[in-house]
Amino acid sequence: MNDAHEAARRALAEDLAGYGDLTGGVLPGEGAARVVARGAGVLSGTAPFLAAAELVDARLSVAFSVQDGERFGPGQTLGTVTGPLAGLLALERTGLNFLGRLSGVASMTAAFVAETAGTSARIAATRKTTPGLRALEKQAVVHGGGLPHRFGLFDAAMVKDNHIRAAGGITAAVAAVRASLGHVHTVTVEAETFADVEEGLACGADIILLDNMELDAVRAAVGRIGGRAVVEVSGGITLDRVRPLAEAGVDIISVGALTTRSPWVDIALDME
Amino acid sequence: MNDAHEAARRALAEDLAGYGDLTGGVLPGEGAARVVARGAGVLSGTAPFLAAAELVDARLSVAFSVQDGERFGPGQTLGTVTGPLAGLLALERTGLNFLGRLSGVASMTAAFVAETAGTSARIAATRKTTPGLRALEKQAVVHGGGLPHRFGLFDAAMVKDNHIRAAGGITAAVAAVRASLGHVHTVTVEAETFADVEEGLACGADIILLDNMELDAVRAAVGRIGGRAVVEVSGGITLDRVRPLAEAGVDIISVGALTTRSPWVDIALDME
Amino acid sequence: MNDAHEAARRALAEDLAGYGDLTGGVLPGEGAARVVARGAGVLSGTAPFLAAAELVDARLSVAFSVQDGERFGPGQTLGTVTGPLAGLLALERTGLNFLGRLSGVASMTAAFVAETAGTSARIAATRKTTPGLRALEKQAVVHGGGLPHRFGLFDAAMVKDNHIRAAGGITAAVAAVRASLGHVHTVTVEAETFADVEEGLACGADIILLDNMELDAVRAAVGRIGGRAVVEVSGGITLDRVRPLAEAGVDIISVGALTTRSPWVDIALDME
Amino acid sequence: MNDAHEAARRALAEDLAGYGDLTGGVLPGEGAARVVARGAGVLSGTAPFLAAAELVDARLSVAFSVQDGERFGPGQTLGTVTGPLAGLLALERTGLNFLGRLSGVASMTAAFVAETAGTSARIAATRKTTPGLRALEKQAVVHGGGLPHRFGLFDAAMVKDNHIRAAGGITAAVAAVRASLGHVHTVTVEAETFADVEEGLACGADIILLDNMELDAVRAAVGRIGGRAVVEVSGGITLDRVRPLAEAGVDIISVGALTTRSPWVDIALDME
Amino acid sequence: MNDAHEAARRALAEDLAGYGDLTGGVLPGEGAARVVARGAGVLSGTAPFLAAAELVDARLSVAFSVQDGERFGPGQTLGTVTGPLAGLLALERTGLNFLGRLSGVASMTAAFVAETAGTSARIAATRKTTPGLRALEKQAVVHGGGLPHRFGLFDAAMVKDNHIRAAGGITAAVAAVRASLGHVHTVTVEAETFADVEEGLACGADIILLDNMELDAVRAAVGRIGGRAVVEVSGGITLDRVRPLAEAGVDIISVGALTTRSPWVDIALDME
Amino acid sequence: MNDAHEAARRALAEDLAGYGDLTGGVLPGEGAARVVARGAGVLSGTAPFLAAAELVDARLSVAFSVQDGERFGPGQTLGTVTGPLAGLLALERTGLNFLGRLSGVASMTAAFVAETAGTSARIAATRKTTPGLRALEKQAVVHGGGLPHRFGLFDAAMVKDNHIRAAGGITAAVAAVRASLGHVHTVTVEAETFADVEEGLACGADIILLDNMELDAVRAAVGRIGGRAVVEVSGGITLDRVRPLAEAGVDIISVGALTTRSPWVDIALDME
Repeated sequence: MNDAHEAARRALAEDLAGYGDLTGGVLPGEGAARVVARGAGVLSGTAPFLAAAELVDARLSVAFSVQDGERFGPGQTLGTVTGPLAGLLALERTGLNFLGRLSGVASMTAAFVAETAGTSARIAATRKTTPGLRALEKQAVVHGGGLPHRFGLFDAAMVKDNHIRAAGGITAAVAAVRASLGHVHTVTVEAETFADVEEGLACGADIILLDNMELDAVRAAVGRIGGRAVVEVSGGITLDRVRPLAEAGVDIISVGALTTRSPWVDIALDME
Repeated sequence: MNDAHEAARRALAEDLAGYGDLTGGVLPGEGAARVVARGAGVLSGTAPFLAAAELVDARLSVAFSVQDGERFGPGQTLGTVTGPLAGLLALERTGLNFLGRLSGVASMTAAFVAETAGTSARIAATRKTTPGLRALEKQAVVHGGGLPHRFGLFDAAMVKDNHIRAAGGITAAVAAVRASLGHVHTVTVEAETFADVEEGLACGADIILLDNMELDAVRAAVGRIGGRAVVEVSGGITLDRVRPLAEAGVDIISVGALTTRSPWVDIALDME
Repeated sequence: MNDAHEAARRALAEDLAGYGDLTGGVLPGEGAARVVARGAGVLSGTAPFLAAAELVDARLSVAFSVQDGERFGPGQTLGTVTGPLAGLLALERTGLNFLGRLSGVASMTAAFVAETAGTSARIAATRKTTPGLRALEKQAVVHGGGLPHRFGLFDAAMVKDNHIRAAGGITAAVAAVRASLGHVHTVTVEAETFADVEEGLACGADIILLDNMELDAVRAAVGRIGGRAVVEVSGGITLDRVRPLAEAGVDIISVGALTTRSPWVDIALDME
Repeated sequence: MNDAHEAARRALAEDLAGYGDLTGGVLPGEGAARVVARGAGVLSGTAPFLAAAELVDARLSVAFSVQDGERFGPGQTLGTVTGPLAGLLALERTGLNFLGRLSGVASMTAAFVAETAGTSARIAATRKTTPGLRALEKQAVVHGGGLPHRFGLFDAAMVKDNHIRAAGGITAAVAAVRASLGHVHTVTVEAETFADVEEGLACGADIILLDNMELDAVRAAVGRIGGRAVVEVSGGITLDRVRPLAEAGVDIISVGALTTRSPWVDIALDME
Repeated sequence: MNDAHEAARRALAEDLAGYGDLTGGVLPGEGAARVVARGAGVLSGTAPFLAAAELVDARLSVAFSVQDGERFGPGQTLGTVTGPLAGLLALERTGLNFLGRLSGVASMTAAFVAETAGTSARIAATRKTTPGLRALEKQAVVHGGGLPHRFGLFDAAMVKDNHIRAAGGITAAVAAVRASLGHVHTVTVEAETFADVEEGLACGADIILLDNMELDAVRAAVGRIGGRAVVEVSGGITLDRVRPLAEAGVDIISVGALTTRSPWVDIALDME
Repeated sequence: MNDAHEAARRALAEDLAGYGDLTGGVLPGEGAARVVARGAGVLSGTAPFLAAAELVDARLSVAFSVQDGERFGPGQTLGTVTGPLAGLLALERTGLNFLGRLSGVASMTAAFVAETAGTSARIAATRKTTPGLRALEKQAVVHGGGLPHRFGLFDAAMVKDNHIRAAGGITAAVAAVRASLGHVHTVTVEAETFADVEEGLACGADIILLDNMELDAVRAAVGRIGGRAVVEVSGGITLDRVRPLAEAGVDIISVGALTTRSPWVDIALDME
């Protein structure tokens, strides 16, 4: 229920085993610091940063002047932290690791979303998330303006080539899934050919996923589907491929690179 | 004690809440798949992949023909998985997320290490690791030929600017740390000037860390230190800055980019 | 991932704190017992029974001759347990509590399902499950021939009166949900009037839920919907109300009584 | 130590995995609701309801006007909840599941206790509790006026037929138990015949349990025991069998039906 | 349920955080070692030793030639360990810490038990156990020939001076306890005077605890109680006070020193 | 991160399973008590005592007038506890177990430290700690004036006889360790002969550990090392052997007896 708290707890445990902070732990007194961006981006990660501060020392006081989902520029102050110096130093790296990684994901998402301006296409995340950080990385995608897509294997069904082969065809695979889970979960059918598209529509797929299809084929598929299902594309989507796909009329463009090719945003803690 | 097992357990829990795999869960029968690289790199992540397979279904059989730390090229088969089809599909994304992320770190490390060939400098990781994955990312750095550096705040002391200011000088800061922890942990002193270097040496620092120093200053500092302490450099190290630093005679080059700017290696599971 | 194992672990911890089994713990030797039904029903709960046996003493050997989802009559032997006597006695109550409760749910479900024979209506579970046992009780409903419905608040959206009032109408409520979660989760709209039904259909509801509606109104609503959405009914469904609803053409009848009014089936362990 | 908190945490985790509440999570604003009984009964479950509210959103304010152990009638308001609307909706089902199930147990207990009015017999729970909910169900029995009996296998010894057979007689079984656990735990001996009763008394049983004995035999056994041990009866006790047993002079009537045959009390959350 | 396993897991986590064993972790090959006593004593702790070995490396093979509860002399080999050298070294300290501490408790217990030879008095443990090790220390007392006494506050009631004062007298205190817990838990009454003894007997105490009473008073109290309750003594019991108390006819002598004043037995691992 | 809190949680769970405190749980009202020393010593354990009070009942108010690391005499009041009587009684044993055990360790340490007065030698702890209590026992050593030494196998390397034999010599063993862990962890070499000392120095050992060496040999070794490494002695150190070793010029005297031979200090809770 509280992913940020749990993620912060785990991350702090990595930094503070044994005797805890050998260096900062011996420093008395209070301190103050600013969270400062060294580059531009879209912010994400304030929730685990706040949770980490609470866990390290409940007397630390954190205030963000930029919120998750907002843009910032290089040199901009994002927030402040004050309180016991030992706590401040113990928080530093763990807190920044969250901000750096998650703002990286949000910023990359925003770049993709910008390419879809004026179209009805939405950028969506995939399940290619860092093991253990899925909830926060999905939220970072939302902060960047994207859709989170299904969380895992458990909240939506997706019939892909392996399922189709194992079940003996799209229709059989969809029927098997429907018989087991009933009525409350959507079924996506991955289509590689127009015949797949037709079969998917015929057996009531909620979403047709066009995987690794050429742009012309995508355009044609969108026309054939004609609103009878949501149209999603995926597979090696890079920034320069997004706009043509969006203009081709697809509904969803799911992009692994949001989480697999997004460098961290450099964010630092400047003591005062 | 078993970081891979715990990380795999957590990652699978992200994918298999509620009813578990809505799609693959209904498929009967056995399957076989190859783990195939779509790009080149250095492998890391077989341990959590194996742990995930064991957790998903103990009847899955996994064999890697390439081992952690070994190079591979695009199209190369890295290993095979056989067993119940439902288990194979549930393993797919979680297992690949480990391989993709960790091989990305190992491969980036190997690129930096290659730049130090013929010198005595070693590439080392930092504490800029993905929250929750530190143990595995540190291992990935080792697989790429780097040093893991300290694990966290608890296994080595590092006196940085904030500590120095709070304690009232390098000598006072080192004394405070030594009084508390005694004799079994090393103390690194971060130096910004030659005076800092001298003061660090005078109070018995084990390691002098030259942070964000120009190349010429690094060369001069190495000369002054003259083997009386380990010399480490850090701060915005990029691939093109590594070789001159290595040739300047530093012992350790710690590089945040190993974990903050390393794209995933594309590794897939091809069903047969 | 392994709900049965975790539920068994928790249940055993309730029985075996402190010194463990004060009475049976001192008995040496081996024993054998039959799992015997004292009444009729449909079996459910073999998975947590097996998990509990494994946890109590891995040397216990359990074999069920009746499987989950199969019917049994009074006096029928359902399985056998052999192994160390102390383990057998420690397993007894915990194992039977699972079989008794879960077979109670499966049996009640089967009674409701029997009333729908020859129609296309399906009996479905609700979220009125015993706190902590949801996964196993949902499985028990499947063992009884029912559908599990959504697992929780997280795998399907359901717009009910409170949401509608808060959002300012059905259309606004559905739009708010769609904007946030995107395309992969179904949206159910709870309708109390024909106007609600029309508004739900107009804004693309996947499922129209007719809550506490009279039989005549249900019949009329089914006609109006005409296959444009799945039709579900709920609210105080008792055994004698099921058949008319099923014959009215609804797709799904969700029944809280499967889990809230189902007495345990009496199942015992007879030592030999 | 805090069973209600832990049970609430677990139950909420069943409802709020993945993205949490897909529907209510998007609603802004505050709300207020009354906890209303749809039927009559004895209340139990306010502790886990309060714990769940605290866990869902610490800003939720809950006040019960009826307390655990008090009777209520149909339509009666039991309490109020106010606070953030999203939290209120996320609390609803989990909170009510506790109240419904536990008040069901308390109400059934009260019905049995009523039958013993004017006698010295006490109604007691058994270990036939829903796996994972034992502490709360035992408390519900207390709320209904019953005794909780032993918590598990660990806080009192009970020598039953299997132990007797394995040990080679009542006397040997009691001796084996006494030798191991010493002096601080009571020993109950299950008796099927008058000879068993005599042997149990002779070897110092604290409690004689008459299992599945006819009423006349119970009367005779009570006479023979004559206060030398506590007299307990058990085995298929139904409401119409309680009063004669109580009048026969037994001390304790333990009743599985308190937890195995008690339907939920219908309690709802009415938004305002 | 498996205290040894859990205690071993925790203890190993203390020794193997971060990078694990910095020294032994790099050693290849196999090794063999003997568990050797440097002093005399009674063995306890083989269960957590075995559990630790299993957790460190399942390929380690451990065999004890002396069992829990058996005496050993200085220089005696207690068992052998063979397997991967790195695992052997990681096991060494954790495994020996269990054997040293728990054999210390067992040996001290045996010394007290020896003083009661030929009497019917039993030596019993108290709740003065090392936090987190209670189950294993209570077992060590049993290995030394003592009784474990109640495990905690939850499996037997003990009415002490504070309870008596708060309730307004022994009779009121016992009544309050009986009303709440019913019939299955024993009640001990702590008596400081003969009047207390009489009042305790009068209200049905199962056990009369004579706390810090002089030997003559104990003798007198035993006579007055005359078998109507178990007689227990406690309070500053030292080795030289045991025999007279045992000969005075008390049933139970509970001794804090078993766990609070017992030095470790020196046990080592000799590599071969 | 919060060892005291976690240790308190675990210790309370040992005392309060099942129905919790059978005796004190039924007492209403408030109480007050003093924490009183029955003997002399150095205090340790206030942190877990405070944590246990918070966990038992957050309304308990605890104030220590003597702090960790301070000396106290017999009869001295160390602190006060006020609040709900039931909570006070539930806290009593668990809280005192921490104070008794940990003050025992601190007091024993202080006795050893007193022997080193006027020398530069420091008393240090070992890894012979009670399984599960290492963090608190190491802190108790610090409270007594000692050094904590390495926490576990993970924060400093120590090359002992087994490593040397396995690696084929001191030089090879140190090289193996250095190659793996790099630059931030110290390496201690255990020396049994002067040749070992020389080899250890030659390969750059940070610390030379003289294990079980005679006093004369220690004096000679200190002279040879001449400040090139920290000198540590260990092995069967008793109070009467400390001063000569300290005067021989060693830096560190590590003493297992601090934790293996330290009786509890008798500390009680006196109700008012």
